[in-house]
This record gives sequence, structure tokens and C-alpha cells, in this order.
Amino acid sequence: METLSEIQAKGGPKKLSLIAFSGDFDKLTAVFTLATGAAAVGYEVNIFFTFWGLDAIKRKEGRAFLGKSPMQKLFGFLMGGLRCTPTSRFNLFGLGPRLFRWLMRKNQVATLEELVEAAKALGVHLYACEMAMHVLGLQADDFVHEVEDVLGVATFLRLSEGGQTLFV
Amino acid sequence: METLSEIQAKGGPKKLSLIAFSGDFDKLTAVFTLATGAAAVGYEVNIFFTFWGLDAIKRKEGRAFLGKSPMQKLFGFLMGGLRCTPTSRFNLFGLGPRLFRWLMRKNQVATLEELVEAAKALGVHLYACEMAMHVLGLQADDFVHEVEDVLGVATFLRLSEGGQTLFV
Amino acid sequence: METLSEIQAKGGPKKLSLIAFSGDFDKLTAVFTLATGAAAVGYEVNIFFTFWGLDAIKRKEGRAFLGKSPMQKLFGFLMGGLRCTPTSRFNLFGLGPRLFRWLMRKNQVATLEELVEAAKALGVHLYACEMAMHVLGLQADDFVHEVEDVLGVATFLRLSEGGQTLFV
Repeated sequence: METLSEIQAKGGPKKLSLIAFSGDFDKLTAVFTLATGAAAVGYEVNIFFTFWGLDAIKRKEGRAFLGKSPMQKLFGFLMGGLRCTPTSRFNLFGLGPRLFRWLMRKNQVATLEELVEAAKALGVHLYACEMAMHVLGLQADDFVHEVEDVLGVATFLRLSEGGQTLFV
Repeated sequence: METLSEIQAKGGPKKLSLIAFSGDFDKLTAVFTLATGAAAVGYEVNIFFTFWGLDAIKRKEGRAFLGKSPMQKLFGFLMGGLRCTPTSRFNLFGLGPRLFRWLMRKNQVATLEELVEAAKALGVHLYACEMAMHVLGLQADDFVHEVEDVLGVATFLRLSEGGQTLFV
Repeated sequence: METLSEIQAKGGPKKLSLIAFSGDFDKLTAVFTLATGAAAVGYEVNIFFTFWGLDAIKRKEGRAFLGKSPMQKLFGFLMGGLRCTPTSRFNLFGLGPRLFRWLMRKNQVATLEELVEAAKALGVHLYACEMAMHVLGLQADDFVHEVEDVLGVATFLRLSEGGQTLFV
């Protein structure tokens, strides 16, 4: 006889999977707030970074000409990494993220950079999207070493199965 | 012996949870269309308002200097509440939302304001995000009285468990 | 006695449902990459096109005055269909999508148009949102014939039940 709790037990711990598509400062803050909050209460958390979201896991701080071809290097420079992410509203040429960082520190809320470090410390699983890496000419070496693997859609679906999945 | 329907029965009614992050007129329309549509067919519906989405539940109509510090008051004014939400495309300095409101009325589709009222009438649960309130200096008093509680990530995950969750 | 696999068996194949709200080139690429990737490993995939996302299933290529009233025709023209979709960042008056198409071809990644064709070939179910069609004055005739039906929220929720659902 199979009870709900037994079925859940078979499926392992509760699971939250996030597709981090957006590279906006505020949306990445939402991704890492959800990830750390869920990990802190025992969830298994997977984040799959794709397109602009890849900015959150780049190894080099600040703008860098990542990529192979000149056009890819241009995109690498324009995207610019975690510290250069714009806000989705009121960016005002980079003033928006500065104001938010200041408001967060002033109100004792973890900043985006602190949330990323907390996620790593809490064992949140970080993955990079294979397809987006091909398009942007990025390689596994371009990312922080906490990124566990480079995945396609099929593998991500298998990982996220049986839990909640959000596209941010 | 445990059948699927019994397991579902234990879990209560079907559930839809929405994270309303965006403060765009068109995306909030999507949030409330999904919420009212689901509630109308018997779903338990939870909406968790965070960041720009908090505009949808502000008590004061129109722009107001909500917040404590001068910088927070500036954000409060810039965000401006439900009636001042921009569209995510073709906003044209506020012309976009006006055109949409006009097209909705003309074609007998519920406007955003009507959808919000319908959601309240249908018993959709409204929650505000604690972290975003800290950053923006907002207090429970700043929201409409239908907002049931101020929540963190862990509580929201518990509420949304076993249903579908969408990040808008 | 009811095992987990038997319960899954009753529910049919694994399911992925996507709400394609955004009409951005990069987000639609994400929608169709997820859809084709999931369909290729045996998932049942449903895409529900609404608002700007309706651009992905318009029958006419390029800009066309779709809609009934003059205002709707203006929106139909401004939205412009799949080939005119902007990127959510670095659009630069249409240069962004061209660069991405070029980078995709150069790096042997399927372009958006190829992904749409693959999705149709793989039997991904395409649906249009009734409410958005009313607002924009669109009719079933305006869409490609692969669009199976025009749905409201309640029917979409029933279709997506028991699987993963993403709002893009």
C-alpha cells in the first residue's frame, strides 16, 4: 500500500528548478532569493542559466570580451557580467542597479552578490545552457567553478521532474 | 489502497500560484486573467506580489510618495500604482495602457481594474513579499485590505506546494 | 495497490505546457527550444499563445494590418509577426534579431523559424488565447493552420494539469 508520503519519500526531497533567462538585476535578485530561500528550508534547488542569465555565472568580474568570433566578443562585452546587469525598469544608464544595491544595504537585505554566494554555500545546483553557449561562443571555462555541468533541454527536464519549475 | 483521486482529495482542491513580479499593465492583466479564470473553475489561487508587482495592491490610487527614506519615496512615486502601470511593449509614454484599456472596454473584455475586483470577489488570496517591502520601504498599511499577509519565500513555497506555480 | 509508476501511467505521458506571452525574439526562441527539446524525448507539449506571443503563429509573413477596427489594425502592424520580433535586450531598431539569426546559423544552432517548423513536425500542440484575440481583433483565420484551437484559461488549465507549466 502506497501513501502520499511514501510516494514523496521515493521522489526524494522537495525540488525547485529555476530557468534564469533574464539578465536583469532585479530578476536575477528574484532568482537567487527564491533559490536561497528554498535551499534554506531543505529543497533541492537547480538553476539553469541561459541567454542573458549567463551573466550571473561568468568568472570574470566586469565587462570582458568573452566569446570566439568578433561578434560574440561584442555580445560578451555588452552583456558585461553580474556587476553590470541593468534593472528591468528605471535602469537610467546603470543608475537603477546602484540605487537598488544602496537600498538593499541600507535596509539590511542581502545584495545580489551576497545572494549568489549564499546560493553556492547552500549547495544550490548551477547549470549552464548548452545551446546559448554555442550562440554566444562561451565555454565552460568562462564560468565560475561552482557551475556543475553544461546541459541541454532534455537533461534539465529530467532534473526538474516532480518539482516546481519557474521561468524567470 | 490509495488511488490517485484519493491522493488528490487529501491535497485539497487544485491550486494555482502566481508570483507577480512584473508591474507591466499587460503582464498584470495576464496574472489576473489567469487568477480569475482559475478561481472561477474552483482552483485555490494564491498571488504573491513582489518588486514592481506591488503596484497592483497599493491602497492609494495614482502616484504617491510611499516609503520611508527620500529614495524610497522617489521609487514609490515613479512606480505609481495600478493606474500608472506601463505596457511591456509600445508604452509610448503611457499611451499604450490607455489604448489597451480602450480596446478592452470596446471589445467587452474585462479591464485590469475589473479583473482585480473580480479576483478579490472570487476569494483569490493576495500576499505581499516581505523582502521587496523592506527594500522599497513599504508597510502593510500601504496595501489594500484584501492583502492577507506579508510572506517570505519559505512560506510561499509551502502555500504553493502541490499545485502549478508561474512567475510572471 | 497503486505504485508511483502506475499513477504516472494513468496520467499519460509527461507533459510540458508553455504560456507564450512575450513576443520577443529571444524569449520565443526559448519557448520553441524547450518545446522541441521536450517533444523529442516524448513529452506531450502544449503552447498557449497570448498577447505579443500571438506574433509567433500569424499566417501572414511580415507586417500586416490584422484586426477589425483601425486601432487593432495599427497594433497588428506594429506587432508585425514572427520575422519582425525584437530582442528583449540590445534590439537596436531590429539589428539585435538579425545578429542573433546570423550567430545561430554560423554556429549551427536552429534559428527561430526552424524551431517553429520542428515544433509543428514533432506534434507540439499550438493554441491561441481567446481573450487576447478579442482585444486585438484577431480571428482563427489569421493564424497558421497548425493552431488546433482557441482556448480560455479554464481549458488551458485542464490541458496543462499534472505537468510542468512555464510562463514565458
